Amino acid sequence: MSKAEDKIKELGLVLPAAPEPMGAYVPFAKSGKIVFVSGQLPRQDGKIICTGKVGSGVSIEKAQEAAKLCGLNALSVLKAASGDLDHIKQILRLTCWVASDASFFDQPKVANGASDLMLAVLGDAGKHSRMTTGVNVLPGDATVGVDLIAELK
Amino acid sequence: MSKAEDKIKELGLVLPAAPEPMGAYVPFAKSGKIVFVSGQLPRQDGKIICTGKVGSGVSIEKAQEAAKLCGLNALSVLKAASGDLDHIKQILRLTCWVASDASFFDQPKVANGASDLMLAVLGDAGKHSRMTTGVNVLPGDATVGVDLIAELK
Amino acid sequence: MSKAEDKIKELGLVLPAAPEPMGAYVPFAKSGKIVFVSGQLPRQDGKIICTGKVGSGVSIEKAQEAAKLCGLNALSVLKAASGDLDHIKQILRLTCWVASDASFFDQPKVANGASDLMLAVLGDAGKHSRMTTGVNVLPGDATVGVDLIAELK
Repeated sequence: MSKAEDKIKELGLVLPAAPEPMGAYVPFAKSGKIVFVSGQLPRQDGKIICTGKVGSGVSIEKAQEAAKLCGLNALSVLKAASGDLDHIKQILRLTCWVASDASFFDQPKVANGASDLMLAVLGDAGKHSRMTTGVNVLPGDATVGVDLIAELK
Repeated sequence: MSKAEDKIKELGLVLPAAPEPMGAYVPFAKSGKIVFVSGQLPRQDGKIICTGKVGSGVSIEKAQEAAKLCGLNALSVLKAASGDLDHIKQILRLTCWVASDASFFDQPKVANGASDLMLAVLGDAGKHSRMTTGVNVLPGDATVGVDLIAELK
Repeated sequence: MSKAEDKIKELGLVLPAAPEPMGAYVPFAKSGKIVFVSGQLPRQDGKIICTGKVGSGVSIEKAQEAAKLCGLNALSVLKAASGDLDHIKQILRLTCWVASDASFFDQPKVANGASDLMLAVLGDAGKHSRMTTGVNVLPGDATVGVDLIAELK
């Protein structure tokens, strides 16, 4: 059992199977040690479980949980790409997309749901640069999306 | 004639000249074998030919065609960057931006217009990771934008 | 004194200290010579100084200044990452996010505020590929955001 997967268990989480793509793309692409992980939505068993916009119907807390689930799905793709999450050298870039009412400004707090998970599971390897934005709508009316770029050992 | 360009002809398409940038940037930047292609809009002969938002005025079908044209423009930039589309090893990341009414949720179907083109033209080399988002507006009121990162052989 | 910092002085600008992250992430991540710079907002002394949306309250000129400040903050992070801005080989990708009213279409003009700064400060090394988008809202109600990927010498 990998250290990272032990951490996931300690957090009371279960690493899912890597989600199926929602279109004509693949879950990840690799160039040498660099892995590009496709955008992840808050999907569980294939179903988006958090829809709607933060600031009009969805609370920050719920959106943070959704971001965490996006992050967990991204980790499942990284496991498929690396064979073992302990082989991740660094999360280089995490981009967090928050479906937002135009009057909601706390997207970074939402994104922390995904960022905190990376740090908790991967330790130093989980420290990442980040871009966070609001958008008016995401695929499937999802509340949050996360994509990332990582380097393998 | 390259295999990829043969495919483009078979699809009844014409690879345009790489579009001029719309600001103080360059069509692509390279780091070793990695090419970063600037955002492409559905421009033909310099003019954006699909404007407006999906879900309020623009149909999915029209937006898919716009995404395909964005993809074709991205291929023209990749040709300029590589000399020959057959030199593309892999499309690593495609990001698709869909100008959307906040009640439209089928962005991935729109993005498939670009993704399917990559697969049809480049085969296995066209398999890519992807992020798709809705946005409230794109430059020039374009309906779709596509940017990408690719690796050359 | 580096040539790039001389240029910054000539432009009447002051390179600030790299801004503190606004969440659970780091200002930059590196993979070999490639630096991923986290999203920068128009912050001065820690405070966002340009808020609101272009097309409803914020002028293009003001937004361009905001984009320039984002770019300056990105340069400060690049200095922290490289030790010396003259060690930058190339800005590979600049992404500019413009908080926009849905009827505003001139995002590229806004983005030029950041792009022109890169060219003025870094010369050929500042030539970059770019993606520019409108979004309905950015963290902290900022008018503009800029993130980038660069290669060091």
